[in-house]
Amino acid sequence: MEPLSWTSDVTEQRVRERTFSLKVGDEDVPGIAWSPEGKDRWPTILLGHGGTQDKRTPGVLSLARRLARHLGYGSVAIDAPEHGERRSGPHERIGPRQMRERVASMTEDQRAEMSARNEMAVAEWRAVLDALQATPGFSDGPFGYWGVSMGTAIGLPLVAADDRITAAVFGLAGLGSRWDGERFAERARALRVPVLFLYQWDDELMERAQGLALFDAIGSREKTMHVNPGGHIEMPPHERDAVEAFFRRHIGANQ
Amino acid sequence: MEPLSWTSDVTEQRVRERTFSLKVGDEDVPGIAWSPEGKDRWPTILLGHGGTQDKRTPGVLSLARRLARHLGYGSVAIDAPEHGERRSGPHERIGPRQMRERVASMTEDQRAEMSARNEMAVAEWRAVLDALQATPGFSDGPFGYWGVSMGTAIGLPLVAADDRITAAVFGLAGLGSRWDGERFAERARALRVPVLFLYQWDDELMERAQGLALFDAIGSREKTMHVNPGGHIEMPPHERDAVEAFFRRHIGANQ
Repeated sequence: MEPLSWTSDVTEQRVRERTFSLKVGDEDVPGIAWSPEGKDRWPTILLGHGGTQDKRTPGVLSLARRLARHLGYGSVAIDAPEHGERRSGPHERIGPRQMRERVASMTEDQRAEMSARNEMAVAEWRAVLDALQATPGFSDGPFGYWGVSMGTAIGLPLVAADDRITAAVFGLAGLGSRWDGERFAERARALRVPVLFLYQWDDELMERAQGLALFDAIGSREKTMHVNPGGHIEMPPHERDAVEAFFRRHIGANQ
Repeated sequence: MEPLSWTSDVTEQRVRERTFSLKVGDEDVPGIAWSPEGKDRWPTILLGHGGTQDKRTPGVLSLARRLARHLGYGSVAIDAPEHGERRSGPHERIGPRQMRERVASMTEDQRAEMSARNEMAVAEWRAVLDALQATPGFSDGPFGYWGVSMGTAIGLPLVAADDRITAAVFGLAGLGSRWDGERFAERARALRVPVLFLYQWDDELMERAQGLALFDAIGSREKTMHVNPGGHIEMPPHERDAVEAFFRRHIGANQ
């Protein structure tokens, strides 16, 4: 097992932020680990960014900081394959409608490639978990997962496969239009940990019934879906409070 | 306008509880007003009990107490027509499945009667609001509403009709099987205040699509639906935290 190789260390407003690199197979996976200042150990939430985003995207950064300040948690984010520092091409900013068109027009080869990238991302997260279990402060867990959209496409199979993760927030994803279709549904059915599923009623990337079908498929006894009006990138800020309340309920505050 | 006529006054664990009677037309409507000890004024939530329940049903009582203790709010509950002290027949305890069968087999006359009772309940709540506006502590508002199942059948038309109520929690209700059908949908579309809509995924009283249709019809820009697995009476306790967070967000704590 490779250890995390630290590359920077800054503490700001009571939150320590360390960047790291982790060798997984042939890849150097860059990541960030946040932790609450003044604590010796903490629960940790793995933060999975969305498509076209990266480990330091504003939504990830603000969630990491608030989890540290409000709950005394650590957080970890990594760049998914072909995202952030791992992009091989230029950075594109595309909206949800363009994204929908692009996904709809993907060739079989492109679908297979995307699916393979997501599998790779799952393996990388598991290597990160291995490394965290050998990292002071992070080592004892418990571990949770948060990630919507691509963060769910990667995170849901991760949480289904790895029982070190004991609570998960997913969302902005559905069944029936996914590149890995039935396999994704199977993994949803295999989930057993408490899940908060966040959904947008007017998501441009999928039909309502697809999101409802994913919530329905999730095998966990404890699962809650929150639905708000608006598009893929219009989730209201109060859902951040709900995420915090969810983790507080299932993992507890680190007092 | 009739004033509230107080019939008892007890303070227990920092919550003052006064029973009252209010003359509305030919009816003497019995109710309870809760308020936080040590405050001069408070926001007030109207609590609408469910079918077969009454103003002191455990869910209503515990919510009133927690709103007083956690948020410094007052609350008011009244017995709906033919409920609690206003029953003309014996008290029946029937489950959701029996309730569904009963609603399904209602005659046209029975439907009309139920609809008339709900209209009457709306008028009674409005008379309670009039009286509260003349009652020290309660008079300034703001006013919110909470009520699921029959509490929504009555509360939704109330909130649609009375702009003194500025935030509402509804749930366990749907479109398409209601005795007052299209009228109920019109009133849902007329809503403009923030709404939290609580729904049970396996509600024995209605189809999933009926609940989703009601959430969809609600005209408010700010609305959130929370869905949990389980039947009509199996809503998980953590939704009480969500109710509290919702009112805190829209009405604020009374510090």
